[in-house]
Amino acid sequence: MTYSAPPPEKIKALCNTIRFDQNGLISAIAQAPNGDILMLAWMNEDAVAETLATGKVCYWSRSRQKLWRKGETSGQQQKLIEARLDCDRDAILLIVEQTGVACHTGRRSCFYHRVTPDGLEDTTSPEVSPEVLYGAKT
Amino acid sequence: MTYSAPPPEKIKALCNTIRFDQNGLISAIAQAPNGDILMLAWMNEDAVAETLATGKVCYWSRSRQKLWRKGETSGQQQKLIEARLDCDRDAILLIVEQTGVACHTGRRSCFYHRVTPDGLEDTTSPEVSPEVLYGAKT
Repeated sequence: MTYSAPPPEKIKALCNTIRFDQNGLISAIAQAPNGDILMLAWMNEDAVAETLATGKVCYWSRSRQKLWRKGETSGQQQKLIEARLDCDRDAILLIVEQTGVACHTGRRSCFYHRVTPDGLEDTTSPEVSPEVLYGAKT
Repeated sequence: MTYSAPPPEKIKALCNTIRFDQNGLISAIAQAPNGDILMLAWMNEDAVAETLATGKVCYWSRSRQKLWRKGETSGQQQKLIEARLDCDRDAILLIVEQTGVACHTGRRSCFYHRVTPDGLEDTTSPEVSPEVLYGAKT
């Protein structure tokens, strides 16, 4: 399945129906086509509009307070396949084709701390080192 | 797969590692075993602790400002199969066995507003009416 972008005026109208929180953000879940949850991040209106217009996923970085074009530094981009808002329009689900890994630790998914009777246990190991993803600090 | 609860002291230790936001909350994604995303909601520390101790999913209702034992009114409970925290421990993924439907509109999933070139389109219809779920208003 391929994503087809709505025209700008439809994107604007759609953004106007979204219930952004007091910080102007909504939660965004990225999911692979096989159902795996890759990550949870945040979007402001500009991030939603850019993502829907370009088909390349752009979040809002709360720590850096700027648009976060996923993969801009690491190369690990997310190509949009489908986007869905939830019932009360304060969360968005992005079905994406993930280049490489989603997690900054080098794992495919950020959700790797599994609860077990003994506490937390990692379900996966990094597929690539963060140094390779972001450049070795010298 | 069956969920096995950690003992109380392990749950307490685990909760101490979670990075709750300024409102004391984390995002919680509920996913069916087949990969379908059912809903996104919020949990405070008490909700996480109760969910992990009992294996029955309990959220925090931001609108009602109280613990929200999913299904308490509607009967549409969520039985925990697996719980996973994300890399920076500010989001939790719950794999659940959903009784009936997750969405208050009577749909199985809350994420039914799909983005199309023509704007939003509903992907599913209600399986049960909200009046049946919550009792008819007279």
